[in-house]
Amino acid sequence: MTISKTNRPASIATFERVESQVRSYSRSFPKMFDKAVGATIYDIEGRAYTDFLAGCSTLNYGHNDPDLKAALVDYISADGIAHGLDMFTDAKEGFLSTFDRLILKPRKMDYRVQMTGPTGANAVEAAMKLARKVTGRNTIIAFTNGFHGVTLGALAATGNGKHRGGAGTPLSGVTRAAFDGYYGPDIDTAQLLDRQLSDPSGGIDAPAAILVETVQGEGGLNAASAPWLRKIEAIARKHGALFIIDDIQAGCGRTGGFFSFEGMGLSPDIITLAKSLSGMGLPMAVTLMRPQYDVWKPAEHNGTFRGNNHAFVTAQAALEKFWADDAFEREVAAKADDLGSRLQAIADRYDLTVMGRGMMRGLKVGTGQLAASICRTCFANGLIIETSGSHDEVVKILAPLTISNKQLNDGLDILEDAFDAALGAHRIAAE
Amino acid sequence: MTISKTNRPASIATFERVESQVRSYSRSFPKMFDKAVGATIYDIEGRAYTDFLAGCSTLNYGHNDPDLKAALVDYISADGIAHGLDMFTDAKEGFLSTFDRLILKPRKMDYRVQMTGPTGANAVEAAMKLARKVTGRNTIIAFTNGFHGVTLGALAATGNGKHRGGAGTPLSGVTRAAFDGYYGPDIDTAQLLDRQLSDPSGGIDAPAAILVETVQGEGGLNAASAPWLRKIEAIARKHGALFIIDDIQAGCGRTGGFFSFEGMGLSPDIITLAKSLSGMGLPMAVTLMRPQYDVWKPAEHNGTFRGNNHAFVTAQAALEKFWADDAFEREVAAKADDLGSRLQAIADRYDLTVMGRGMMRGLKVGTGQLAASICRTCFANGLIIETSGSHDEVVKILAPLTISNKQLNDGLDILEDAFDAALGAHRIAAE
Amino acid sequence: MTISKTNRPASIATFERVESQVRSYSRSFPKMFDKAVGATIYDIEGRAYTDFLAGCSTLNYGHNDPDLKAALVDYISADGIAHGLDMFTDAKEGFLSTFDRLILKPRKMDYRVQMTGPTGANAVEAAMKLARKVTGRNTIIAFTNGFHGVTLGALAATGNGKHRGGAGTPLSGVTRAAFDGYYGPDIDTAQLLDRQLSDPSGGIDAPAAILVETVQGEGGLNAASAPWLRKIEAIARKHGALFIIDDIQAGCGRTGGFFSFEGMGLSPDIITLAKSLSGMGLPMAVTLMRPQYDVWKPAEHNGTFRGNNHAFVTAQAALEKFWADDAFEREVAAKADDLGSRLQAIADRYDLTVMGRGMMRGLKVGTGQLAASICRTCFANGLIIETSGSHDEVVKILAPLTISNKQLNDGLDILEDAFDAALGAHRIAAE
Amino acid sequence: MTISKTNRPASIATFERVESQVRSYSRSFPKMFDKAVGATIYDIEGRAYTDFLAGCSTLNYGHNDPDLKAALVDYISADGIAHGLDMFTDAKEGFLSTFDRLILKPRKMDYRVQMTGPTGANAVEAAMKLARKVTGRNTIIAFTNGFHGVTLGALAATGNGKHRGGAGTPLSGVTRAAFDGYYGPDIDTAQLLDRQLSDPSGGIDAPAAILVETVQGEGGLNAASAPWLRKIEAIARKHGALFIIDDIQAGCGRTGGFFSFEGMGLSPDIITLAKSLSGMGLPMAVTLMRPQYDVWKPAEHNGTFRGNNHAFVTAQAALEKFWADDAFEREVAAKADDLGSRLQAIADRYDLTVMGRGMMRGLKVGTGQLAASICRTCFANGLIIETSGSHDEVVKILAPLTISNKQLNDGLDILEDAFDAALGAHRIAAE
Repeated sequence: MTISKTNRPASIATFERVESQVRSYSRSFPKMFDKAVGATIYDIEGRAYTDFLAGCSTLNYGHNDPDLKAALVDYISADGIAHGLDMFTDAKEGFLSTFDRLILKPRKMDYRVQMTGPTGANAVEAAMKLARKVTGRNTIIAFTNGFHGVTLGALAATGNGKHRGGAGTPLSGVTRAAFDGYYGPDIDTAQLLDRQLSDPSGGIDAPAAILVETVQGEGGLNAASAPWLRKIEAIARKHGALFIIDDIQAGCGRTGGFFSFEGMGLSPDIITLAKSLSGMGLPMAVTLMRPQYDVWKPAEHNGTFRGNNHAFVTAQAALEKFWADDAFEREVAAKADDLGSRLQAIADRYDLTVMGRGMMRGLKVGTGQLAASICRTCFANGLIIETSGSHDEVVKILAPLTISNKQLNDGLDILEDAFDAALGAHRIAAE
Repeated sequence: MTISKTNRPASIATFERVESQVRSYSRSFPKMFDKAVGATIYDIEGRAYTDFLAGCSTLNYGHNDPDLKAALVDYISADGIAHGLDMFTDAKEGFLSTFDRLILKPRKMDYRVQMTGPTGANAVEAAMKLARKVTGRNTIIAFTNGFHGVTLGALAATGNGKHRGGAGTPLSGVTRAAFDGYYGPDIDTAQLLDRQLSDPSGGIDAPAAILVETVQGEGGLNAASAPWLRKIEAIARKHGALFIIDDIQAGCGRTGGFFSFEGMGLSPDIITLAKSLSGMGLPMAVTLMRPQYDVWKPAEHNGTFRGNNHAFVTAQAALEKFWADDAFEREVAAKADDLGSRLQAIADRYDLTVMGRGMMRGLKVGTGQLAASICRTCFANGLIIETSGSHDEVVKILAPLTISNKQLNDGLDILEDAFDAALGAHRIAAE
Repeated sequence: MTISKTNRPASIATFERVESQVRSYSRSFPKMFDKAVGATIYDIEGRAYTDFLAGCSTLNYGHNDPDLKAALVDYISADGIAHGLDMFTDAKEGFLSTFDRLILKPRKMDYRVQMTGPTGANAVEAAMKLARKVTGRNTIIAFTNGFHGVTLGALAATGNGKHRGGAGTPLSGVTRAAFDGYYGPDIDTAQLLDRQLSDPSGGIDAPAAILVETVQGEGGLNAASAPWLRKIEAIARKHGALFIIDDIQAGCGRTGGFFSFEGMGLSPDIITLAKSLSGMGLPMAVTLMRPQYDVWKPAEHNGTFRGNNHAFVTAQAALEKFWADDAFEREVAAKADDLGSRLQAIADRYDLTVMGRGMMRGLKVGTGQLAASICRTCFANGLIIETSGSHDEVVKILAPLTISNKQLNDGLDILEDAFDAALGAHRIAAE
Repeated sequence: MTISKTNRPASIATFERVESQVRSYSRSFPKMFDKAVGATIYDIEGRAYTDFLAGCSTLNYGHNDPDLKAALVDYISADGIAHGLDMFTDAKEGFLSTFDRLILKPRKMDYRVQMTGPTGANAVEAAMKLARKVTGRNTIIAFTNGFHGVTLGALAATGNGKHRGGAGTPLSGVTRAAFDGYYGPDIDTAQLLDRQLSDPSGGIDAPAAILVETVQGEGGLNAASAPWLRKIEAIARKHGALFIIDDIQAGCGRTGGFFSFEGMGLSPDIITLAKSLSGMGLPMAVTLMRPQYDVWKPAEHNGTFRGNNHAFVTAQAALEKFWADDAFEREVAAKADDLGSRLQAIADRYDLTVMGRGMMRGLKVGTGQLAASICRTCFANGLIIETSGSHDEVVKILAPLTISNKQLNDGLDILEDAFDAALGAHRIAAE
């Protein structure tokens, strides 16, 4: 049997006719894509685009990394198990032992790994359920502008109003606290939270957990400071709550270390990972928990695809290629410095704010309209880039971590030109 | 870079040390598996097992079907896009147009396809959210012994007490109704539901949707009759609710047709599919909705992995291979007849009940202990098979639909022997 | 200071201008009333009406019983404490010791008395909260057509759709079961409930309590049989739930005994009382609990008016007057027999059903329109009477228990004439 | 029939044996009381106590005001209707027209009056339900340290952890905001709330209402400033929410005017009143709503005791006696000034803070232990006084507004001595 492309001239009309209107990114990038290598995506007419979106940080190692690809093709060709429920498989063992050896052990982290359903939302749901089971409490504290997924449990923790509105039903079980810096530089939001939790009539029930992203990828690239995160962890401990870091977007090297919180003196009770974990964009997610909190009964949280062995294969390959020593980490740090400098230059020119940290950066431009216009210009010039934030007012740069310096800078040139076109023109118009 | 197996002697100890105790199937089948072809799985010592579990109906076309495998390897080798968020890709277009051409159009079904997060639970969550949005109502009616996933929204619809207990928080928004036959043959449970919904003081709020499986895969292989399902659909219409069929386990050919409800005169408003949809066990799920109910705003329900292009490739290949004409369907029907006859013979011998329909069958043996014991004997004799039902009292047969008659019958021989050993011995012991 | 009536000519216009449109009974009886004695109410024009509504069973001892009145006037005149929060007062001690001596002790009932806020809904809320605290469970089982109040906790247990719709938010924490006879005489609804609760995948979470009225006063005067109630109690015990009888409308003599369930072999864990408890229509409610379930912390459930000492005084007087021996009880039983016979005669004539038991009876006439028309005719002829039921299709007779046989029969004459006018005419029209 | 006290020697043992341990005030004042006049309560041994608790502000006009008493005794003696459901009665008309004439009209307030169940909690439940119905939204914003009752809907809005813990189930539908000054004088909490509500990703859903007390009677006598309240009202308007003032404890003259917010430039959409509304401590509550929000269907929110006609009679008498002109208001203002001066003197001596305003004042002493000790000393010396606040750390003065200057000052002398004994001694001990 062959699946001949000639039989079906691929057409965007198919999507308009058959797919639900819920689709979104295709509205910003209305081309049909078919191939991708490293930091480059190609549309079916052969045009190349530099990818500063990288699957929203799912493709930290770029598209189709040759070693990951080879490992996967070898595995498939040898009739490796694709789908294994949660049975013991060679591929799963490979991932688990490698993750333990290269990630957990060197960082002196003692965690059990739960293979959840292969989506970030599922890992978050597992984390929230587990925290409630462990503590016998209901309330999860989550933060302004946080994003944790759109299934009903995770959605309650997500701040975004559009996503929340999709529930069609009230969301409960989550109390919202203000993220680091939310009320400006003069107000320590950790202190506000502690004040209220310490007050028996503060009206927040004793929390099961505090759930936080270190950098809010969807919420505008707000980066929490290490001191603030340590205070949040201390507040969790003080009030008998588990401390959960959702590292789905910021983890897997995006901010430098494998975990986004390395070197900050934090010891989360539960950690969620997904997105770049499989290394090649394949669906995979895990929830890490301190051993004493592994109180699940067998199958209590289950799911058909929690044994995506293809993903285990590429995840193991990614760990071995990028995390066996600190070379990659140092390379990313250097690249992040360059990126920061270039963004700062643009920010200085137009009095903007650079958001985020590591290779998870953005420029806050004030309005969603302006940000969208800049992104459109970029796309017209071969750069795929998206916005973030409450008002989509942050132009977000999530280039693959493996991008060459040349391609990174070429992409930033396109970006800079788009800023100049939008804001230079704007200034002229205003003068 | 090579990922040499010699560096890491695969060991079950890894799982015991690193993986959460939530794992379940590995407890029934405590071997490490590494390869699989068709209906056969191999452990790392090279022993072959016939697979009557088939990833809980995720592997309807068997493991590593050569054509699906080839399509996937070709795609990867050519640097096809692996992860595409919800952008337009060649692979996605291929799936959508093929699904429309081979599945929807021939059945005169007019639906929009939502690519949800790639798990069944996510497809169910999308369906529930959508029904609530469309109707402005909150309550979803779901059924005794129903299983729809374990994320918080779907979990509320799931009947299983162990899974529900995992929530750690009360589940709301779902009212439970009795499935077909739940109160015995003399009580028409559809009539009970209509009675209560028709009563302004019946105490069930006007429902947003009625959510039903045609065959309850996890709940004991209870198969609803066509007349009952038609009544349920009529009740939904009468009370202004959407009619949702969760076809995740029973669909994709498992009961004969592509959808489990074909030929029953049903027109669900929303349908969920996952499990065998990708054809090769890769994570993929969709929610189908009548066009008038496609009221999502862009991105309102989103998720990182809703563009698993590898799965689109194998899904398209599976549709073209198995559903381009009715040959496969007829073959499955014949196989299901054979299966039914053999199970009926065992049932007759031991006064048991055959559950389910099509290739989704089981034998209700009375206790979970007995069912588990039979499955253990099977496994010792090279057959992977699991239980189902409220008390795990149903031995469930979910062989790949592509299994050869020979392998099916050999597997059934092992099963029959296990019944004889357990129940023959039992009878002798009792005499 | 004098409050001279001449200064304010009382006018219905005031209500139309100043009062919320939520008022209801005044729509059926659009007269202004000012005095009432026994079973008679007078409007401001001096017209007398026989009261077959009796404050929905709040005036079981009639209006302004002379002994209760005298006790209250004496108390007030002597500057007895009116409002005492939950402090120890003479009046409260009088009620508690009398209640213990005349009600609890003779019936060998060992209960603690909680003075809740002085409304039935508050007593129900206290009962539901307590059951959840005691069991650590969330779900309360309540029944079709049940009415338990309209504050958010109690409202979740109330079946009536109009009341539920008033919440403006989804109601949760209650699972609905079918009341005795709800699905007709051939289906034992207790068995259905037990079937579902006994099934680990039945989808009802282990209940904190089963909450039931023995006769559904608002729900259409459905009277549960003693065997069914015993089964419900046994089901509660079997599944670790508390058994709560809401005796707010059916208690205080309305069905014969002080409690509606006397002689049925029931031992509820919690009992709620209100309505006729104060004897004179003053706001008062209590929640009775078995001592082992009195796990409240001081003030955990509180409320400003839980020390309505005027009500304690009249309640004590009522207990001493009516419940010191069994004379009243026997008198009510005889009256109930007469009432039953007369209603049965009407029922036989027009092929209707007599509902309820004791002095809590009704005639189910088929439609709300017909029932309302009959009640309107009665009112025009000097009889205050209301409807009940899902469709307001039951004409409900709740005469004071102290009504004279003469006045009862005169009232029933008016009722009978109204039936004849409505149904005799109807039959002629149909012929 | 006579109810002879000699038959039952009143004994505290009755309470210990028969009453639930939920009782609370009786623990602070373990005497049995039987009579009360004005600001004086008597125990059964004839000892007089000055009442600085006043039924938690339910007895603003003192115990058994002679005119109210006379009106009530006249009414009862004349067989006035005691219980009238929500039918038109002379007494209800009297209250409504007087309330309209003396309270609403002179203040140019256009409101409809809903007679809710006769508890403050019920009035709050009605307000919350109505706001949700009107807006079609779910979330109610309530404040830290707020107290609104303990039925499930109102309890969600109550901040106190002990009360919340009594629910036995998670409370939902309410988002907590910080009250005026909660985070200290430098942080404008209104601004924080607006910041979060204005942020589409702030994670608070668009609110149905903002519910606030102007002075938090149970929460520690925190008094909101007029500018802050105006900002809160403006925030409600800006975000499409109703503005609800719960004036149950602070209203009816307690802070000077009839409503606690008079002269502040506020126009609440809904107002709740209870406690002192009936004037004599009888259960009565109302919910006032702007006419355009009177969207109730008849009987949608109902309740047996919403026609407590005794309370209507005393309420009307109280309005006519105290609110026909501004004499009482001026008298209260003068008394409040004296009270404030005396408390300030104690505060200055011991470096404490005076809380509250009007005749709703307290002294924050730092710990609940100290406050309780002071109250115990007062009680030993014939003064009934209680604590308030998150840690019960505020000694709360709620004397009847009608108390004579002499009795007020004598009571304050006892209070001052108790402070001196506790804190003078304390200072000596510390030296």
